[in-house]
Amino acid sequence: MNEFEVTVLGCGSATPSLLRNPSAQLLKAAGHFFLIDCGEGTQVQLRKNNIKIQRISHIFISHLHGDHYLGLVGLIQTMHLLGRKNKLTIVGPADLKEIIEIQNKYSETFISFDLEYINTNPKKSEPVWEDEKIQISSFPLRHRIDCTGFLFKEKPHPKSIIKKELEKHRISISEIHKLRLGFDALDENGNRVANEKLTTPGPPQKSYAYCSDTNYFEAIIPFIKKVNLLYHEATFLESELERAKKTHHSTATQAATIAQKAEIKQLLLGHFSARYKHTEPFLLEALPIFENTWIAEEGRSYVVE
Amino acid sequence: MNEFEVTVLGCGSATPSLLRNPSAQLLKAAGHFFLIDCGEGTQVQLRKNNIKIQRISHIFISHLHGDHYLGLVGLIQTMHLLGRKNKLTIVGPADLKEIIEIQNKYSETFISFDLEYINTNPKKSEPVWEDEKIQISSFPLRHRIDCTGFLFKEKPHPKSIIKKELEKHRISISEIHKLRLGFDALDENGNRVANEKLTTPGPPQKSYAYCSDTNYFEAIIPFIKKVNLLYHEATFLESELERAKKTHHSTATQAATIAQKAEIKQLLLGHFSARYKHTEPFLLEALPIFENTWIAEEGRSYVVE
Repeated sequence: MNEFEVTVLGCGSATPSLLRNPSAQLLKAAGHFFLIDCGEGTQVQLRKNNIKIQRISHIFISHLHGDHYLGLVGLIQTMHLLGRKNKLTIVGPADLKEIIEIQNKYSETFISFDLEYINTNPKKSEPVWEDEKIQISSFPLRHRIDCTGFLFKEKPHPKSIIKKELEKHRISISEIHKLRLGFDALDENGNRVANEKLTTPGPPQKSYAYCSDTNYFEAIIPFIKKVNLLYHEATFLESELERAKKTHHSTATQAATIAQKAEIKQLLLGHFSARYKHTEPFLLEALPIFENTWIAEEGRSYVVE
Repeated sequence: MNEFEVTVLGCGSATPSLLRNPSAQLLKAAGHFFLIDCGEGTQVQLRKNNIKIQRISHIFISHLHGDHYLGLVGLIQTMHLLGRKNKLTIVGPADLKEIIEIQNKYSETFISFDLEYINTNPKKSEPVWEDEKIQISSFPLRHRIDCTGFLFKEKPHPKSIIKKELEKHRISISEIHKLRLGFDALDENGNRVANEKLTTPGPPQKSYAYCSDTNYFEAIIPFIKKVNLLYHEATFLESELERAKKTHHSTATQAATIAQKAEIKQLLLGHFSARYKHTEPFLLEALPIFENTWIAEEGRSYVVE
């Protein structure tokens, strides 16, 4: 299984509405369920999309504006009420811990599982978590309060062995593990055989960058360079550029410009202001600048091929 | 206008689900919009029911379990984002202030209106707010954590003047105000004329009692005696009596028994456990004990006649 897929649970901004939910996404990658942001109502959105909440291992929170985290305490308490045993890791601003713990304290909720907190650094990019298959880092965005984006990047996949060449060069099976990791092998006489002769490259590494709430901010480009899929907020159309600047948000034009400059493969726009009933104008605005643009729709899944 | 009407916004328990929202009700009474409890998703429920959120003047929170208050911070922040100027009064447990303020602090939300906090007393019944038309008090329930019910009771309505009798007894117009309040009048010669001769009673005082999350608890009966409408939680059916006791909740049988003993006029059951897809069994269980029973349905309004 090499699933790498983002399901949009909420693509609205500022306040929940009848039209859109506040920010939340589920990323399935490297065998994990990663929840990214968790606005009010995310629990119900998870259920609507048949996502098993106990499968979520990590929750990433970009910043402490309510539309990005107010569903978190309820989700944690629901996980507890439903008898969760597995550890849950929360990656986000340092102050989040206090917000969660004070509410668990006053409700006398003694969480049935380990809650691990990993603090993001709002000043510089840092790795926040990794296992053998994926590495995740945060990087600063530019918003009214401290806010970070997240980069999810698969580690190199094991190389594929060319069986025929293995036999031809008389390489024993015990060498395969080294070969898959990219090292050279020794034949039965102890002679070194170059990895490239015996293997083909594994599947390409997939990557996803999540950039919630930010001004147009070229400093993020090195962190998101050439990612397979970039989610970038587009709260406004370019006709509301002044409002975008003032509220520390981006326009569709700006998001597409970042995508183009970062040479990413596919762009996903979201965090639409409630003033816009329809999202086609975001697509029309972005396309001339960056062709591979998708518009976030709640309940839709975006597969990174 | 003499509106006195409860709209149920959420009648589920514990966690939000696709079936039911967590607790929230809007009471229109004495010209006010009172929100009672505010579980996650209440904002959207208010919108779905076309209730203008800025008309809400007071929010009453029974206790600090998430399904009764987790929608509150988001609602306050939405009121702020939409430019509210009018004061909002929060009536609830003392610790609620810290929960709200810490989240406004970390989101750097400087609320645009006055937020007034009135603490409920979990140990004894106390008046919490009143104006010339209505008096509201809290009273202790018996739950796993401190929890109060609320009683909303209209003050006596002004009496109606019998014009014919006014003329007959030669009472001047300046006496009308006193008469409407129930005092006797003086005729043009300075002789006292009994109020009863000159007036008929005003409309009866309406009352609503809200009893969220509680064990079967007869101590509440004096506070809710003879109310027009009693909302009482019925999380379980009697077949789950042991579970009800253990989780500090009530069964439909117990709620109906309280209604019957308190001689109230109309009972409204809610806070149904997610284990029950259908609510008819709650009605069937309550009816033999208390005939005038309604089952809470989200979006339905219950008028106190």
